Amino acid sequence: VARRLGSRNPRLARLRHLSRRRRRRVEDGAFVIEGPTLVLEALESGITLEEVFVASDVLAGDAASVRAVEAVRAAGVPRWDVDAGVLATAVDVVTPRPIVAVARIPEGSAPLHEADLVLVLDAIADPGNAGTLVRLAEASGVGVVAFGGDAVDPYGPKCVRASAGSVFRVPVAQGPTARLLDQLRAAGHQVWLTEASGATVYDQVDFTGPTAFVLGNEAHGVPDQLRAHATGSVSLPMEGHVESLNVAVAGSILCFEAARQRRAARAGRGEPDGLVG
Amino acid sequence: VARRLGSRNPRLARLRHLSRRRRRRVEDGAFVIEGPTLVLEALESGITLEEVFVASDVLAGDAASVRAVEAVRAAGVPRWDVDAGVLATAVDVVTPRPIVAVARIPEGSAPLHEADLVLVLDAIADPGNAGTLVRLAEASGVGVVAFGGDAVDPYGPKCVRASAGSVFRVPVAQGPTARLLDQLRAAGHQVWLTEASGATVYDQVDFTGPTAFVLGNEAHGVPDQLRAHATGSVSLPMEGHVESLNVAVAGSILCFEAARQRRAARAGRGEPDGLVG
Repeated sequence: VARRLGSRNPRLARLRHLSRRRRRRVEDGAFVIEGPTLVLEALESGITLEEVFVASDVLAGDAASVRAVEAVRAAGVPRWDVDAGVLATAVDVVTPRPIVAVARIPEGSAPLHEADLVLVLDAIADPGNAGTLVRLAEASGVGVVAFGGDAVDPYGPKCVRASAGSVFRVPVAQGPTARLLDQLRAAGHQVWLTEASGATVYDQVDFTGPTAFVLGNEAHGVPDQLRAHATGSVSLPMEGHVESLNVAVAGSILCFEAARQRRAARAGRGEPDGLVG
Repeated sequence: VARRLGSRNPRLARLRHLSRRRRRRVEDGAFVIEGPTLVLEALESGITLEEVFVASDVLAGDAASVRAVEAVRAAGVPRWDVDAGVLATAVDVVTPRPIVAVARIPEGSAPLHEADLVLVLDAIADPGNAGTLVRLAEASGVGVVAFGGDAVDPYGPKCVRASAGSVFRVPVAQGPTARLLDQLRAAGHQVWLTEASGATVYDQVDFTGPTAFVLGNEAHGVPDQLRAHATGSVSLPMEGHVESLNVAVAGSILCFEAARQRRAARAGRGEPDGLVG
């Protein structure tokens, strides 16, 4: 059933481009998913797989990849066989796994106004941070993660990997940050910029209503131009000589504080807490 | 004033060993600090510098290193000049900077019982995670970070770097984890293991008294043997399909929840909040 592709096959050239170039991902509306765990998570999350590439010469030694290959076969996804060495040149990782998929980027922007808790990443530059933030967004009940114009690509391989599959499940919006914030405020959200010099300590704010947190670039923080588009700014109080926290750490603290307040409010109203795990 | 060292000089061999081998750091009671920012932070934090190595052939092009060299000169620290290419072979970083110091590891273990909030790292394997945790420990007012027996070396170069200098200021204890927990409980601390399946949701526990949080290995979590040495276990409730959080993210949420509760308790007693920033 599977045809073996040579190293110059155009499908492999496309895989290489999709793995390395954001522009190609945007043009094709497709992205790359590496390894059996992520491929299975994508299938289970309803992500459409266009095709998979299998390093059949090393497949038998990787039980998880064998299971993933069986699952994509059952799902009717076209499969191409390649040599492991050839597949390795097409992907991003240091230790390539025997299965790589090309998947469709979900179409349309996630409806910001329907999400009760939104995380806005403005100009986040490190894909590992972005992926970690998508993961903790899912864990804390964030409904949409909005990637501002200058942020990394949510569908780049490093972000997909750091999200450990959460990017398949958490709706993602993209657009110029100021416009995203205006949409949120028009929908009734309180929009809070996160800054070391923020006017209000984060735990003094009621996050139980529709809320959005805005995290800025790792080196430069949130730009001044966004102030006019926000409700205000919150700070994380820091002791000792620490002047800033890793952006994923700051995001965790805010999103889990919002989740904590919402659990407390539900408990106060006598509602079930709806927790998983 | 500075003597130029050849590539086979025994001082450089020692620098290389201190950078790469935990055993040598323990034997010598010394560790390596790379780059001007960390060297200056160490000086300002009262860390004793034994000697510095300066790549004088590239120093002039690095204004921050020029300032650090001046500061260590004013502090009377012995200086050795080496070629940049030689210094680069002795250190851990991808992009070496023109100044590297050898520093004394602070002697004696930090007094666990005097710290009102303690973070215990049991078998944390990634030095980047350990350093990030030391940093957020300082930011959230943790008094001692205790490195359990199987955790990475707090004075390894990657941990020092990820801590961004916090390891110079936050007291560090080391020892077998079970013994550290016994010491804490004997001193009256509540000792909470952090687990996905923890019995109590973290925000349902009062952390305003003497408290210790125990974080386990990134892959394997907290081992069962520690249960008998702890007060109990707390969980971070997770929504969606997320089964675990990055250990630095989990540590942030717990330590900042303790800090939040303590601020609220102080405010309730009408005390100043004592916040910096």
